[in-house]
Amino acid sequence: MKTIAVYPGTFDPITNGHVELIRRAAAIFPSVVVLVSGGPKKSPFFSAEERVGMVREAVDLCEGSIEVKCFRGLLVDAVRECGARIIIRGLRAISDFEYESQMALMNRRLNPDAETFFMISTEDHAYLSSSFVKEIASLGGDVSTMVPPGVDRSLKTRFSTPGQEKGEGIS
Amino acid sequence: MKTIAVYPGTFDPITNGHVELIRRAAAIFPSVVVLVSGGPKKSPFFSAEERVGMVREAVDLCEGSIEVKCFRGLLVDAVRECGARIIIRGLRAISDFEYESQMALMNRRLNPDAETFFMISTEDHAYLSSSFVKEIASLGGDVSTMVPPGVDRSLKTRFSTPGQEKGEGIS
Amino acid sequence: MKTIAVYPGTFDPITNGHVELIRRAAAIFPSVVVLVSGGPKKSPFFSAEERVGMVREAVDLCEGSIEVKCFRGLLVDAVRECGARIIIRGLRAISDFEYESQMALMNRRLNPDAETFFMISTEDHAYLSSSFVKEIASLGGDVSTMVPPGVDRSLKTRFSTPGQEKGEGIS
Amino acid sequence: MKTIAVYPGTFDPITNGHVELIRRAAAIFPSVVVLVSGGPKKSPFFSAEERVGMVREAVDLCEGSIEVKCFRGLLVDAVRECGARIIIRGLRAISDFEYESQMALMNRRLNPDAETFFMISTEDHAYLSSSFVKEIASLGGDVSTMVPPGVDRSLKTRFSTPGQEKGEGIS
Amino acid sequence: MKTIAVYPGTFDPITNGHVELIRRAAAIFPSVVVLVSGGPKKSPFFSAEERVGMVREAVDLCEGSIEVKCFRGLLVDAVRECGARIIIRGLRAISDFEYESQMALMNRRLNPDAETFFMISTEDHAYLSSSFVKEIASLGGDVSTMVPPGVDRSLKTRFSTPGQEKGEGIS
Amino acid sequence: MKTIAVYPGTFDPITNGHVELIRRAAAIFPSVVVLVSGGPKKSPFFSAEERVGMVREAVDLCEGSIEVKCFRGLLVDAVRECGARIIIRGLRAISDFEYESQMALMNRRLNPDAETFFMISTEDHAYLSSSFVKEIASLGGDVSTMVPPGVDRSLKTRFSTPGQEKGEGIS
Repeated sequence: MKTIAVYPGTFDPITNGHVELIRRAAAIFPSVVVLVSGGPKKSPFFSAEERVGMVREAVDLCEGSIEVKCFRGLLVDAVRECGARIIIRGLRAISDFEYESQMALMNRRLNPDAETFFMISTEDHAYLSSSFVKEIASLGGDVSTMVPPGVDRSLKTRFSTPGQEKGEGIS
Repeated sequence: MKTIAVYPGTFDPITNGHVELIRRAAAIFPSVVVLVSGGPKKSPFFSAEERVGMVREAVDLCEGSIEVKCFRGLLVDAVRECGARIIIRGLRAISDFEYESQMALMNRRLNPDAETFFMISTEDHAYLSSSFVKEIASLGGDVSTMVPPGVDRSLKTRFSTPGQEKGEGIS
Repeated sequence: MKTIAVYPGTFDPITNGHVELIRRAAAIFPSVVVLVSGGPKKSPFFSAEERVGMVREAVDLCEGSIEVKCFRGLLVDAVRECGARIIIRGLRAISDFEYESQMALMNRRLNPDAETFFMISTEDHAYLSSSFVKEIASLGGDVSTMVPPGVDRSLKTRFSTPGQEKGEGIS
Repeated sequence: MKTIAVYPGTFDPITNGHVELIRRAAAIFPSVVVLVSGGPKKSPFFSAEERVGMVREAVDLCEGSIEVKCFRGLLVDAVRECGARIIIRGLRAISDFEYESQMALMNRRLNPDAETFFMISTEDHAYLSSSFVKEIASLGGDVSTMVPPGVDRSLKTRFSTPGQEKGEGIS
Repeated sequence: MKTIAVYPGTFDPITNGHVELIRRAAAIFPSVVVLVSGGPKKSPFFSAEERVGMVREAVDLCEGSIEVKCFRGLLVDAVRECGARIIIRGLRAISDFEYESQMALMNRRLNPDAETFFMISTEDHAYLSSSFVKEIASLGGDVSTMVPPGVDRSLKTRFSTPGQEKGEGIS
Repeated sequence: MKTIAVYPGTFDPITNGHVELIRRAAAIFPSVVVLVSGGPKKSPFFSAEERVGMVREAVDLCEGSIEVKCFRGLLVDAVRECGARIIIRGLRAISDFEYESQMALMNRRLNPDAETFFMISTEDHAYLSSSFVKEIASLGGDVSTMVPPGVDRSLKTRFSTPGQEKGEGIS
């Protein structure tokens, strides 16, 4: 039986930090499934379809067996459907840790057969987050070293459209 | 003079973590007043009346002298009106600590006669929060081990109503 | 070449904690520029003009060379326009630290010539925040020891206006 | 039945931060017992007798009913012997919180009848610790505003004795 | 190729928290190697041989393929010798996280082929640590619910020996 | 008047993380004084003379005006003697922040004319610490990318000497 690891997230949009984690996971586990949360609640900047597309394009060049799927509903159900028992999450900072550890304990109660394993973001990406990236891009800042090329293009297209809400500035 | 301890919160909804804290406080202090914040600002999921009702039902079986009240305005004023000088708050995690300690210092400045005392959530409930509970329930997950029976029923009723906003999934 | 230190923030509104930091910075650096973030995004309570006015009035009595400006767009661009290489930020708590350190690393990547330096809030103001101040004032609490006199007046005016949204209470 | 609160610690030596906490507790609880840990393990700087003496002298002027005792062995046993069910501890910082919360859960398991309640150190004393005080005094620094007069005298006596180990300097 | 996960530690002594983590890891990974650090530096309470013996006895009843080995030198070398690429560590608290994340990044630099994965301790064992256990046992407290039976016996034997250093008490 | 910034530390030994911070500080401030703590208390691995020598060699190639001095006694006194009012410290992690903020407040009370400013370690060095470096070197691990060449040589010499205590292994 192949060990399958699931990497869930909102990926709104996927950053180089996410890509690096996927790459590292794919080097360790025979099969990695990237689960893009497709639910309506968090009112994402990019639609579920756009986000799945950007993830697919980004991981295309990674080695290893990587699949990209959209999911709705409880994560533990999606994990079960994948036939997986390993959930991977990245930790960048203490605040991540608190939220993530509560989530991991909650998910463990909802599905005791799956375990959450945390990987530490490498130093180069510890400060990267999807929301920082969007804020900088909204102000015309250069994010080309922080996201895959396809995401960079999508952000530029979005923020050059007239009428698009502008951010306030990193302060 | 009887020592009165006040336990304030939004309780939207009350969880088993809250109930356990109330029970522990009622075992120590002769009188415990649960203060349900009734203000309009945080746009709670349940109305103040519903929340007070659920707290009342939940603590009904706890031993000790427990009262449940709604309050509006500054907490320190409500505490004074109760004739209390002890404010009890639960701490689950570091992020709680930061916010709570700032609040405690602020409240101390507003009313130097009252002191905030923190209790540590026991391990069984450290991961429980009202917002997690709502998110899981919104996705059809089972929260019956996390909240009192009355709250479980209320959540089921709410989320089975057509047109009710659905959550995104624990991810 | 004069060493210029920039102190950016939203100042919505300025508190005595901010004033104290500006005073301490102005005692060390020959020139301090307070940069008030004027962007539309965070939907501030006071307008950019009001906030700049309140900062100006508040620092008027501080010794040293202090300038107050509004900025829009990326902070690093505003810093460059000031001819400054020192960005000053205050740290009150751990949660500040996490966010601020990510921001500092991000800004460093966007402009390697500028450095962020953090000062620790003195004990008297460690618990003060603009949002606490607004919440207390919205409930009719006394904030006159927490903000400059002009801010106190503005808050009173705002919250005595009929139809103004009321806060929920510190809980 | 009188509510008794126990405040345990090493008090090596007692600082103004400890005194302030004892004063605040004595204003709330009818009876406060300060428990000075007398065990041999941590190789304290002052002997158990000296520490008890300094605590007694320091709380002499506090109002309320305050007793000072030495204890050996498990804290929960000492608490039981006092007829108390309330253990009070001060929290200054996050690192305190982690250690203290683990201790509180451990003590709860060892004696479910006692509860630990945490008070937040007020701003003036948040940075004070017995070890900082000793380090500064060892270097000839002035700690007279940080400790009670008796402790200040004892530290001066100790560090003026030839052959006494000198500290390294606050760096 | 079988996925091998390595779980390194000092295990001085092994607690029920460690056992639970090993059990969870063995349910997920085909093969788990428990690596007991045998180096001289930290002056452990139990010798390397005693610690290995206690771990072996403790995991004997766990299902799955579990091996117990002693290692000296760099962890990354021991991992390589096991033919493993997965290092598992438990996280109980923030302070764990800081130290562990620095270690993980360091080990990654020393051996980029191995990845550290973190599991969250379940609530029942979040407060457990080898040093707490030793301190309580040294004071005659009951630790039989915190450690495997063999460890409980060893601790009792050790602390009943005359001349054995006694602890100070949980305070 | 030239703005002088003081960078104090134990530097036992200096790492590439320290060097990078000195370089960044020297790019901002006209004059930087590196203060090597020479006190006896912490029983450093390298003597004060060795540490000063390693720092001097390491910063020799940095641009800007950098001086290296040894100090004994209170830091605030050494800062005053340098004619400086700016103390620079690096922050890598939360645990640094807690300790450092308490120290900064303490030093501020001892000398209100000096201010501590914190810089965030860049990502490449966030995990580096003098003690990790010593531990790895003691086990024969390669630290040549973590410390200046002179320090690498000194560590190799020290740990190849027979009878030198060996570390336990990064676990």
